[in-house]
Amino acid sequence: MRYAVLGTGTAGRTLAAALSSLGHEVVIGTRDPETTLARTEPDAMGNAPFAQWAVNHPLIRLQTFGDAAAHGERILNATAGAASLSALEAAGARQLNGKILLDVANPLDFTHGMPPTLDPVNTDSLGERIQRTFPGARVVKTLNTMNSAVMTEPARVPGEHHVFVSGDDADAKAAAVELLVAFGWPRDGVIDLGDISTARGPEMLLPMWLRLWGALGHTDFNFHIQGARARG
Amino acid sequence: MRYAVLGTGTAGRTLAAALSSLGHEVVIGTRDPETTLARTEPDAMGNAPFAQWAVNHPLIRLQTFGDAAAHGERILNATAGAASLSALEAAGARQLNGKILLDVANPLDFTHGMPPTLDPVNTDSLGERIQRTFPGARVVKTLNTMNSAVMTEPARVPGEHHVFVSGDDADAKAAAVELLVAFGWPRDGVIDLGDISTARGPEMLLPMWLRLWGALGHTDFNFHIQGARARG
Repeated sequence: MRYAVLGTGTAGRTLAAALSSLGHEVVIGTRDPETTLARTEPDAMGNAPFAQWAVNHPLIRLQTFGDAAAHGERILNATAGAASLSALEAAGARQLNGKILLDVANPLDFTHGMPPTLDPVNTDSLGERIQRTFPGARVVKTLNTMNSAVMTEPARVPGEHHVFVSGDDADAKAAAVELLVAFGWPRDGVIDLGDISTARGPEMLLPMWLRLWGALGHTDFNFHIQGARARG
Repeated sequence: MRYAVLGTGTAGRTLAAALSSLGHEVVIGTRDPETTLARTEPDAMGNAPFAQWAVNHPLIRLQTFGDAAAHGERILNATAGAASLSALEAAGARQLNGKILLDVANPLDFTHGMPPTLDPVNTDSLGERIQRTFPGARVVKTLNTMNSAVMTEPARVPGEHHVFVSGDDADAKAAAVELLVAFGWPRDGVIDLGDISTARGPEMLLPMWLRLWGALGHTDFNFHIQGARARG
């Protein structure tokens, strides 16, 4: 299948590489490919320059948000949450219409200092905002509650743990679950929270995730909902 | 030890009963004991009238917030989050000075409809607000991330799962951990998140908890942080 992964950061690279390994045709979308490829320094998060990563992933092309979205039968939003709406607008509503749009972003707000807060939060979520702004897209919020390495390699965290899906479109959620299973998630490790408004729950896990990172000193952990299985 | 449990709802009753079972002298605090005892109908959450509960717990007295706080060497805030500051003001700052104040409340805001949102949230938390308002109290945020039955009977949820502590006072947190262990929590089931500002993390789990309740259809679940143990 043809996938567009929007965003050239760690999450975008990790998801693109995993999709490519599964045999999908992947294009990564960025605002200005020339600028992205011209960078020679690590980014603010310490990621190696994209061009360096690209050398090791020759099957994955880099295009504009619009060209990537046009290519993709499915879209993954892995941009920084504060830039996601702008990136999706650059991709173009017409290129999103009718397509499954997996939103893995978190609306982290660094304007209040560290650790970041969220915006939107509490009475709204990024997932809902994307669905409202692009009503033709079939938005599924998922995978935003863990380090990106865990997204596509859940066995990095030994033992049972969970990934969540939220969305208004049942078929889109079912397709998202199939992709999660292809990434290595056990089917009963996926919890369907309900419609896209339930994205507020997993997005609001981020402040806890950040503090657990601080307390534990590593990122190879994930939320497990003990007692989630149907009781006998 | 002498405990004051502020709040006559499910959480307050459950914590008071558990403390009493452990041999502590427990007084429950309420705004107006006569009014609380005069109620003959279940409350908004469906709890049986307090007077009915009290018959089965003759060792536990009901007093005003102020008298209860004066009695307690330790204070548990189990009031509704929106009423917590007012309840603690009624208890009196002088009665809280130097005492460990365990805050298990969640600042649920029902003014936006169901499910409730949080206030404060994101850039503040109830735990921090209580600590700021009563700087002489030694506030520990804990136990707010689960159904009250699980607080004092963690084995209701089979398997490993976690409880969190946040607070500025290391000795107060150590005392809180001892109480959690007395309630049945394994020592390595307690995660110390850091100072009181980290209370934002566990308070912001509530929107997820509420949606998990909706998705799972029961409340005998809890958050487990898979991968939290030190890596070998």
